[in-house]
Amino acid sequence: MRVLKIGGSIVDHDERLAMVIDACSAFGEPFVLVHGGGKMATEMADRLGVPTTMEGGRRVTDAETLRIVTMVYGGLVNKNIVAKMQGRGVNAVGITGADGNVVRAHKRVRGTLDFGHVGDIDSVDTALLHLLMNSGYSVVCAPLSHDGAGSLLNTNADTIAAELAIALRRAQNVELVYVFEHAGVLRDVNDPSSMMTSITRTETAALLESGTITAGMMPKLTNAFMAIERGVTSVRITRFDMLDAGTLIR
Amino acid sequence: MRVLKIGGSIVDHDERLAMVIDACSAFGEPFVLVHGGGKMATEMADRLGVPTTMEGGRRVTDAETLRIVTMVYGGLVNKNIVAKMQGRGVNAVGITGADGNVVRAHKRVRGTLDFGHVGDIDSVDTALLHLLMNSGYSVVCAPLSHDGAGSLLNTNADTIAAELAIALRRAQNVELVYVFEHAGVLRDVNDPSSMMTSITRTETAALLESGTITAGMMPKLTNAFMAIERGVTSVRITRFDMLDAGTLIR
Repeated sequence: MRVLKIGGSIVDHDERLAMVIDACSAFGEPFVLVHGGGKMATEMADRLGVPTTMEGGRRVTDAETLRIVTMVYGGLVNKNIVAKMQGRGVNAVGITGADGNVVRAHKRVRGTLDFGHVGDIDSVDTALLHLLMNSGYSVVCAPLSHDGAGSLLNTNADTIAAELAIALRRAQNVELVYVFEHAGVLRDVNDPSSMMTSITRTETAALLESGTITAGMMPKLTNAFMAIERGVTSVRITRFDMLDAGTLIR
Repeated sequence: MRVLKIGGSIVDHDERLAMVIDACSAFGEPFVLVHGGGKMATEMADRLGVPTTMEGGRRVTDAETLRIVTMVYGGLVNKNIVAKMQGRGVNAVGITGADGNVVRAHKRVRGTLDFGHVGDIDSVDTALLHLLMNSGYSVVCAPLSHDGAGSLLNTNADTIAAELAIALRRAQNVELVYVFEHAGVLRDVNDPSSMMTSITRTETAALLESGTITAGMMPKLTNAFMAIERGVTSVRITRFDMLDAGTLIR
């Protein structure tokens, strides 16, 4: 079973998103697709005059920002992907981590740094996912979780994808695929042919030190390594037009 | 089985919404709750500088307005209700009519009047609703449908509630409850004690003519009569703090 994560560079480009949806429609079996929000949340915040603050690559989520990501991730992006999938014959259901209690989290506290309404995942309940997929529905998941006390939380899409894959692995083989704009992990970001066919944690540390891998790539790789080390059958990082290729995480 | 519809006057007031959610959590069985968007869509359109145009009480939905209602109805309102229900022990799943192909519609064409991306319902597929409710999940439905060709459409929440109730009635008894800010249909809008315990189509026509019932009440009543005439077991219009009372549609 496949869990895919598509990042902002896919969500923001209609033709790339269409390629991914077309490829998914050819799987012939239900899948889970986790999406990010791309630039749309930032653009919406700008239009609404809400300042965007990033800390270590993570969006600081005040109450107004939580409203925006709930609208953009949970509504605009999620439901448009669902409608497009329906148009391609994929019977999709769009959820957040609050729906069916799929992703329970708590508000992140890191010393004096307040990320606001950002959730670190406590548990994944796969019951809804199994129910839907066993009946032929594919699942489109927005990067939002909930605290079980009535509040939504903003949670990283890479991490949600990894945690869903890990939890689903308890019942069956799971292939986790991070889909973005590059062919995979590249030794030279300007040269697609420099793609590494596989990568280990040890190699990653060396490549990060030498500057071959940028800091921006690390959250994805960190989640990818977590997934493979916690039992996910196969984890890859690849480009939107070649879902079956890319860099294998080892 | 209960299908409830809550209007903008509930969605816009946290304490009223909390009352409805509390009452729903006491049902002891899964239910469907269809919500409107309240003033939030109009407020968001104002903040984004998108003009709101109404024709005969219906929002004219250009491309930008469709994005706004998708964000507000499908994201902000829907997912906050889901999270609040989870906080009250109700295992809710939030959907639009695109999810699971539940509500299929076509773009409304009425002579020269262009409502934009407004959908008139063609069909309801109850498979997802049954699957979820048979497994203990309650369903929260936003007033959006889809055309089956990849596009979302804006569809009246009163009508979606009626059509879901009619479709679900094929399998079991269905009680449809329109929940709003008044005790029911009132002979005197300023006097809750003037509530009619029941109302017929004939009475409605006479009361509309005499000005007792306002034009604003008619879309709700029209959908209510459609539901009862097409077989829904029981249809009522009532207030957020008395879900088991109100005016019975006959």
